[in-house]
Amino acid sequence: METCSRTKLIVVGRKIFNEDSGMTRSYVLLTPGPLTTDLAVRRAMLRDWGSRDKSFINLSRDVQSRLSALAQAAASHVCVPLQGSGTFAVEAMISSLMSDQSRSLILVNGAYGRRMAEICRRLGRAFDIYETAEHEPPKAQDIDRILAENSAITHVLMVHCETTSGILNPLSEIAEIVKRHRRELLLDAMSSFGGIEIDLGALGITALAASSNKCLESVPGVSFVLCRHDALEKAQGNSRSLSLDLYDQWCGFKNNGQWRFTPPVQVIAALSKALDLLDAEGGVATRHARFRQNTDILINGMRALGFSTFLDDPLQSPIIVTFRPLPHPNFDARIFTQGLERRGFIIYPGKLTTEESFRIGCIGNITPSTMARVIAAAKSTLKDDMGIVGSSTSSV
Amino acid sequence: METCSRTKLIVVGRKIFNEDSGMTRSYVLLTPGPLTTDLAVRRAMLRDWGSRDKSFINLSRDVQSRLSALAQAAASHVCVPLQGSGTFAVEAMISSLMSDQSRSLILVNGAYGRRMAEICRRLGRAFDIYETAEHEPPKAQDIDRILAENSAITHVLMVHCETTSGILNPLSEIAEIVKRHRRELLLDAMSSFGGIEIDLGALGITALAASSNKCLESVPGVSFVLCRHDALEKAQGNSRSLSLDLYDQWCGFKNNGQWRFTPPVQVIAALSKALDLLDAEGGVATRHARFRQNTDILINGMRALGFSTFLDDPLQSPIIVTFRPLPHPNFDARIFTQGLERRGFIIYPGKLTTEESFRIGCIGNITPSTMARVIAAAKSTLKDDMGIVGSSTSSV
Repeated sequence: METCSRTKLIVVGRKIFNEDSGMTRSYVLLTPGPLTTDLAVRRAMLRDWGSRDKSFINLSRDVQSRLSALAQAAASHVCVPLQGSGTFAVEAMISSLMSDQSRSLILVNGAYGRRMAEICRRLGRAFDIYETAEHEPPKAQDIDRILAENSAITHVLMVHCETTSGILNPLSEIAEIVKRHRRELLLDAMSSFGGIEIDLGALGITALAASSNKCLESVPGVSFVLCRHDALEKAQGNSRSLSLDLYDQWCGFKNNGQWRFTPPVQVIAALSKALDLLDAEGGVATRHARFRQNTDILINGMRALGFSTFLDDPLQSPIIVTFRPLPHPNFDARIFTQGLERRGFIIYPGKLTTEESFRIGCIGNITPSTMARVIAAAKSTLKDDMGIVGSSTSSV
Repeated sequence: METCSRTKLIVVGRKIFNEDSGMTRSYVLLTPGPLTTDLAVRRAMLRDWGSRDKSFINLSRDVQSRLSALAQAAASHVCVPLQGSGTFAVEAMISSLMSDQSRSLILVNGAYGRRMAEICRRLGRAFDIYETAEHEPPKAQDIDRILAENSAITHVLMVHCETTSGILNPLSEIAEIVKRHRRELLLDAMSSFGGIEIDLGALGITALAASSNKCLESVPGVSFVLCRHDALEKAQGNSRSLSLDLYDQWCGFKNNGQWRFTPPVQVIAALSKALDLLDAEGGVATRHARFRQNTDILINGMRALGFSTFLDDPLQSPIIVTFRPLPHPNFDARIFTQGLERRGFIIYPGKLTTEESFRIGCIGNITPSTMARVIAAAKSTLKDDMGIVGSSTSSV
């Protein structure tokens, strides 16, 4: 459990509810982000930087090229970072890389797919929606058929890991079909980038949007789009927003390495440190293995307590897991969440449209031993806060 | 001079050009922002926050109400914070508070006025430009006449302190005219908010946009719009951008105190600490007095060295000063800037369209004694780096 460097507390019981200084509490965030980060990442924010100085320009350039390299795309794709949250990057990608002549097919099985449709609707960009249930991935043969039958569709928009449920959508299959039909694939890889390997070039993906504060395990405040050169070169004049215009943002970097508008310098320094830590861990594959271990320990432990997962195992991402409420008359999701909070763990309510649920994230600066403590805390919460000691819990 | 907490170096000569760790150097930023901040502000970023937790919601709400209160607008205006740089907030203000039926009069005497026009042009919002030279404020009688003659103009857009030159535009006069003509005034107060007193209610200003990293002396990454209640209530559906929709952003806060999209939690914690420091200093009036002292010492010292200011004194803001190159055959602006950098001070090139210049900022965690050291460094740079020892410099 990370604490700030000034204060290191053993947190017991309700003490963590103190609201005074904001420095006296310490949680593990098991959420879809912001996440628990390494203290070294936060310490990287202790310096002031002039945003137009050579040292910051070099730092920013280095971050950009490392982000492209993470997706094996250093030669093919440009990294255009953007101030703001991940949604800003998704909107910038859609508004800059599509034109008024484009038409998109949006694959929806959760809130983030629906959000891409909302962005298109507002921008007045034509789109069709292909929707599956929140526990069902898009079917490759359907996409194949739709693209074959609809020549007006120029772009396919898809969420890689839909954190609404935690489902991992079948990127390789869909990308292969989009590529075969010579359409453009724009990917929301917000919660997968850095934690799941993506080979942009091999998959023929036009662009992906992601942010600093998910699997890259940095703090929030900067997002980015990895964009194929030729697509970016054709993007001039597409965006009606000045702030979210990826083409203009890219031109700024090309001209002098500088951000057009004031960048969050400390947040970018933190991301640079987080990329160091990713390298030190062994890269995306090693990090993926840790997340997978976290997920397995979580799911096995929760199942032993009687919980069931919303998704079938083959669809489950190693990012976030949606659980159903325990089928026990004493179980109360609010008490469960608060009990975990008192024990130092923040989890989030479910986001499903169809049923009650809660979600536990597996990413951030957390390890299998953290997950073992989560299970112990869950068991203690069931027993001590709700009087639930089922036979299924005795094995944990 | 602030340094990071881990490393405190006396920087001599070219050592500060070391590009290795990024942690071994220490500058005073005399720029239009990001600025030199207090170490306590940066230390406030050492904690992780869950963005949907009660503690963060309370922190964010507190920051919002304190920002409104700084403009005597706690009752009349809502503070809607937004991820991203100041330009994001200006665009959000324009796109959300104006509709397709609006027409604006944009007062331009520098790059930031021109940027507002560019935002309107891209958004397809009708506008007229009233432009004065970069050293001339808008004339009140002209605005009066234009508004009287053009009933189609619904909004007036203006920059308070235009950091292109450092000119302080006559807010009270213009606001009074706009109010009398019952039009709406949208103010870019980016580089003045927190350093120059603004009474939003008394001036009848509809909205102002500003950011964390100017006179509030925090780190960059969050901006905000202070917006009159009734104007915000009418703003639904105006913005074509999802990310930059102030109305939707406000609804999110109204519903549950939460940001719609992931907020830069550490940046907001830093802003909260910076507001504490502003209170501790004595508020906006006291800070303004410090900036004015900084400016006076800077201008007097530079004049004694033979430099002249671009602006007449009555127009000069206490934010940033534009100087003309020294009229001496040995003077080279590049050598001057580099010499100051070697001596620990970052200044910025000029942004005027009409003549060569450089700019020195007077805001941030710097004091009159910092400014005295700037003058000493300037004198040393002239003498040691360019061999300029004029009679005018002997008195310093």
